[in-house]
Amino acid sequence: MQIGVQLLPSPPNSHLVSNRVVVVIDVLRATSVMVHAMSQGAKEIIPVKTVETAFQMAKTFPRNTTLLGGEKDTRRIEGFDLGNSPKEYTVEKVRGKRLIMTTTNGTQAFHSVSSAAEILVGSFFNIGAIAHGSIETGKDLLIYPSGDEGRFSLEDTVCGGMLIDRIITRGLKQVVLTDASHSARTLYQRFEGNLLEVLSLSRHGKELIDRGYGDDLPYCAQIDIAEIVPVFREGVIRIF
Amino acid sequence: MQIGVQLLPSPPNSHLVSNRVVVVIDVLRATSVMVHAMSQGAKEIIPVKTVETAFQMAKTFPRNTTLLGGEKDTRRIEGFDLGNSPKEYTVEKVRGKRLIMTTTNGTQAFHSVSSAAEILVGSFFNIGAIAHGSIETGKDLLIYPSGDEGRFSLEDTVCGGMLIDRIITRGLKQVVLTDASHSARTLYQRFEGNLLEVLSLSRHGKELIDRGYGDDLPYCAQIDIAEIVPVFREGVIRIF
Repeated sequence: MQIGVQLLPSPPNSHLVSNRVVVVIDVLRATSVMVHAMSQGAKEIIPVKTVETAFQMAKTFPRNTTLLGGEKDTRRIEGFDLGNSPKEYTVEKVRGKRLIMTTTNGTQAFHSVSSAAEILVGSFFNIGAIAHGSIETGKDLLIYPSGDEGRFSLEDTVCGGMLIDRIITRGLKQVVLTDASHSARTLYQRFEGNLLEVLSLSRHGKELIDRGYGDDLPYCAQIDIAEIVPVFREGVIRIF
Repeated sequence: MQIGVQLLPSPPNSHLVSNRVVVVIDVLRATSVMVHAMSQGAKEIIPVKTVETAFQMAKTFPRNTTLLGGEKDTRRIEGFDLGNSPKEYTVEKVRGKRLIMTTTNGTQAFHSVSSAAEILVGSFFNIGAIAHGSIETGKDLLIYPSGDEGRFSLEDTVCGGMLIDRIITRGLKQVVLTDASHSARTLYQRFEGNLLEVLSLSRHGKELIDRGYGDDLPYCAQIDIAEIVPVFREGVIRIF
């Protein structure tokens, strides 16, 4: 298995990913929200690019089946049911519901990698399940940190490095790493045992603290609390 | 001082770098060659994009004043005086000479960042001098690893991380790091004390070993053997 990491969130070449599994990661906070919501019984999640698209799409479903969630400029969106903090997505609110989500980085990322053979939703919450799921596919892997408004994201890359570390320590033979995936794993090993440190050090982590969402950092640093592998296919995230 | 790192070798926005000092790094091997040649008394170096341009430019200077150096696909170029191994660039060969150089990554990088306020040539050879020179400018810094044919380069980023570490340990106050520069410094700290390990681990380092240039790795891992700060201005690298 070859494992690459797309260090900057630009769409990879279609021919590069058409035979690969891509794991999209946005620890703070889109993929953490998605994994959390699915683990609490949400039926499906539709990631869309804009607030306008979210409102339009919501109209096409019966109102009591569908919730709107996400953020714009880190903040809650007026008229949306839920923000972008994973802990809001409780079983009482989301069980059996369809979520339509839009965020700055994470929901965009799914559309950037749509030519991949399979697209998985990763976070610290489900890192072990994703490692297992990636190995099961038997395909090469591209880890896709969603980034920070086009910039490199430290916390997403560390999460990607943890995924690489889990795959290797599961004893999978013949794992081939690139310079980028070596680096991601090395970064993870530096912060292993104190993920909250890296979330607090990152630019986006500091921004969340400044804007009153500091509680989300320790929440998003929880490891292996969800044994699920959400998959993005034909525009929708589900557990298949 | 804010310090950024361009993790992938795409040209930065002109407005981002017009007031910054950029340090171009291609440890294996273009900037190592350049620093070595200047330290051995070369008069100036002209980095050009293609072999054809190199030959054409050479014709415009008296033949005994000018040498052609570099590589294409890692290998020596037919008709060139010198290859791309720093140790070839001895005082006997280069003193007082003009070098025209073309390589796969490093010489291209100078043209990618040409809108910067100042462009310095960095390598492990002159890391201390570059740290001092960068601080002296009083400007924000962008470290530009030349990459590996468009990909992320582990060894160049580690060298950039060492530069950041040197600047911080010199006691400069108010150094602001981005997620990328935090990562570069962390990667350097992992390989501190054994730079040969990271050169041997990198994709390009392995390629050089495979092609018979393995001796260049320990040579390029030498630290602080040249107390010079070569500068690229108006197409030419000199000591100003």
